[in-house]
Amino acid sequence: MTVESTARGAAGVVAAAWEDAEPGVRRRILEASGRLMLMEVQFAAGAEGYEHRHAHEQISYCIAGRFEYSLDGGTHVLTAGQSIYVPCNVRHGARALEAGTLLDVFTPIRDDLLPRG
Amino acid sequence: MTVESTARGAAGVVAAAWEDAEPGVRRRILEASGRLMLMEVQFAAGAEGYEHRHAHEQISYCIAGRFEYSLDGGTHVLTAGQSIYVPCNVRHGARALEAGTLLDVFTPIRDDLLPRG
Repeated sequence: MTVESTARGAAGVVAAAWEDAEPGVRRRILEASGRLMLMEVQFAAGAEGYEHRHAHEQISYCIAGRFEYSLDGGTHVLTAGQSIYVPCNVRHGARALEAGTLLDVFTPIRDDLLPRG
Repeated sequence: MTVESTARGAAGVVAAAWEDAEPGVRRRILEASGRLMLMEVQFAAGAEGYEHRHAHEQISYCIAGRFEYSLDGGTHVLTAGQSIYVPCNVRHGARALEAGTLLDVFTPIRDDLLPRG
């Protein structure tokens, strides 16, 4: 599967356009092939990715910044280089304690987030 | 599944110890749960992760540095923020053009890389 509206550069990178999500949050699909999806999510300081859940497994990896990450009713602080695993159907969300970026990995692909043709 | 020999810190991060791989290459499993695995791989300048293949799907994301990434006989340059998808059973390898770090994502888990009990 290839993401629509993508650019394939010399480096063979598939990257969709930036999309607004919640206020102060924007996301960009980097890869969506087979059963793996990789998404970059940028947060302004204080911005929040609201709690939600989905059948897909997820790992969030903190590239930069500092986040309060909620998972199944608990709270974890994530800083650069730290990650967290989100099992299927478990509620989770993230609030940026300072401006920062998360890398979200999913299996299978989040079809609900793919650009519509 | 939980990786053996791991430390679970206050942030809820599961991280195994660093392990030597090829010369100048060391790796560390960050997460290995359900059907998702996340691994950090550090390369000295010029070091090489030799070409290999496996039944697992993979995405490699460049955190830092510059890599010559081989995939199915072709060559791609990856710099920070760029990624590449590796389908099942396709030969791939990476050579560090400068010191750097890759983040490797797998589905399912690479049982062959888990610490032995």
